[in-house]
Amino acid sequence: MVLQVIGFDGDDTLWHNERIFTLTQERVRAMLSRYVPPELVDQSLLATEIRNLAAFGYGIKGFTLSMIETAIEVSKGRIGGTEIREILNAGREMLAHPVELLPDVREVLEELSAGTRLLLITKGDLFDQESKIARSGLVNLFWRVEVVSEKDEASYARVLARHAIPPEHFLMIGNSLRSDILPVVAIGGRAVHVPYHTTWAHEHVEVDELHHNGFWRLERLRDLPALVDQVRGAAPSE
Amino acid sequence: MVLQVIGFDGDDTLWHNERIFTLTQERVRAMLSRYVPPELVDQSLLATEIRNLAAFGYGIKGFTLSMIETAIEVSKGRIGGTEIREILNAGREMLAHPVELLPDVREVLEELSAGTRLLLITKGDLFDQESKIARSGLVNLFWRVEVVSEKDEASYARVLARHAIPPEHFLMIGNSLRSDILPVVAIGGRAVHVPYHTTWAHEHVEVDELHHNGFWRLERLRDLPALVDQVRGAAPSE
Repeated sequence: MVLQVIGFDGDDTLWHNERIFTLTQERVRAMLSRYVPPELVDQSLLATEIRNLAAFGYGIKGFTLSMIETAIEVSKGRIGGTEIREILNAGREMLAHPVELLPDVREVLEELSAGTRLLLITKGDLFDQESKIARSGLVNLFWRVEVVSEKDEASYARVLARHAIPPEHFLMIGNSLRSDILPVVAIGGRAVHVPYHTTWAHEHVEVDELHHNGFWRLERLRDLPALVDQVRGAAPSE
Repeated sequence: MVLQVIGFDGDDTLWHNERIFTLTQERVRAMLSRYVPPELVDQSLLATEIRNLAAFGYGIKGFTLSMIETAIEVSKGRIGGTEIREILNAGREMLAHPVELLPDVREVLEELSAGTRLLLITKGDLFDQESKIARSGLVNLFWRVEVVSEKDEASYARVLARHAIPPEHFLMIGNSLRSDILPVVAIGGRAVHVPYHTTWAHEHVEVDELHHNGFWRLERLRDLPALVDQVRGAAPSE
C-alpha cells in the first residue's frame, strides 16, 4: 500500500476521554442516590443522551445538559438549585480537566511523523476539542487537524477530498469501530483499531459487521510503527 | 482590487440569530421575576456568560448552561427542578428554531455566486452551525464552508491559507465589527460591514478603532452586488 497520510482519532485513542465522563457520572449517581437507585440513573441518563444527540451532538456541554435533565427527571422535579449547581460545576471541571495522553502516544507520533504526514480527525464540540488539542502538546506533530461533528462515510470523504488524499492511500487509527474504522473502510481506506479498555454503550458495533476487511487490530499503540512498516509493503489481511 | 473570494458571516448577517437569544432571555427574565428584578437578571446573565466564555465558547448549549447558572444564582438556590426544566426546554427550542433568512439574502448570494466563489465563515458551536447551514437552504451557493471557534486574526489567516486565498483578494461581509471586519482588515483583507439592528453587548467596538481603513459600510445587503462591482474597479476608501 502507498501510504500518504495517517489519520488519528483523538478521544480515547491519543488521550483519555471516556473515563472523565465515567467519573462525573459516578458523582452524579451518588448525588441522586437519595431519589433513585444508581442503575436507574445510568439508564435514564443514557436514554436522555441518545434522545438529545440529534439536538446537542457530542461533547461535554450537551452531556452536562443531559445530566441536569436526568436529575430533574429521576427526582420528579424535587431536585433543588444547589444540587443542580453541583452538576454545573462537574461539567465545568470536565472541560478544564487536564489532557492525559495514553501510553506511548508522544513517542509513536514522533516516530511516525518523521516519515508520514499525520492528520488528526476528532469528533465533538469544536471549542472543547481545539482546547484539548492545544493542551495536548501534540499539535506540532500533525500536518493538519480536523474537528468534525460526526464521523461517518460522508464526513471522511469530505475531509479526504478537502486535503486531496486518495482513500486508498489513507490509514486511519482509532479506538471506535463505529466512528474510526467502519466508515473509513467503507470508502476504500485502511484502518487500525486500537481498542480503549471501555467503550460507550452507543459506540458498540458487532464484530461480525466488519468481515475483517481492510483493517487491523492492535492491543497497544506502541506496535503501530511496526505495523505501518508492514502495511507499506503489503495488502491488508482478508 | 482583484476579488477572488467573498466571505460571509452567518449569524445576523445571513439569518436571524440574536433575536432568538433575546426572546429566550425575556422568557427566563419573566420566570425569575419573583426572585429578582428583571434588570438584575440581565446583568447577572451577561456576567455569567462572559465568565463562562473561556470554558464554553459561543453557542446555544453554553448559553443554556449560563442561564441555568444565573437562575440558581439570582434565586440564591431557591429555584426548583421544574423551573430549570423550563430553561432546558427553552434551550432546546432555540436549537430547533427555524432558520429565518434576512431580507434579500438568497437573491444577493445567487447573484454574487454566479461570478465569484463564496465562502461561509461562521463562529460558534460546530454541530448547531452545521445544522443551521443545512436548514438555511443556502449551502449550494457556497464554494466552501468553515465553522471556527473564534474569529480573530489568527483564525482568518488560517482559513485563508488553507484555501490558498491571498488576503488582498478577499472581501469579508458581516454584521460584527469585532468578529467580521477588524481582524480581516488587520491581516490585509477588505470588508463590508452590514450592521444588524441589535448587537450583543460583548461585540461592541468603538468606531474610532477602525480608522475607516479598508472597509465599507452598507445599511442593506441588497446594495452589496453594486458595491462589489465598484470594489473590483477601485481601491478602498480611506
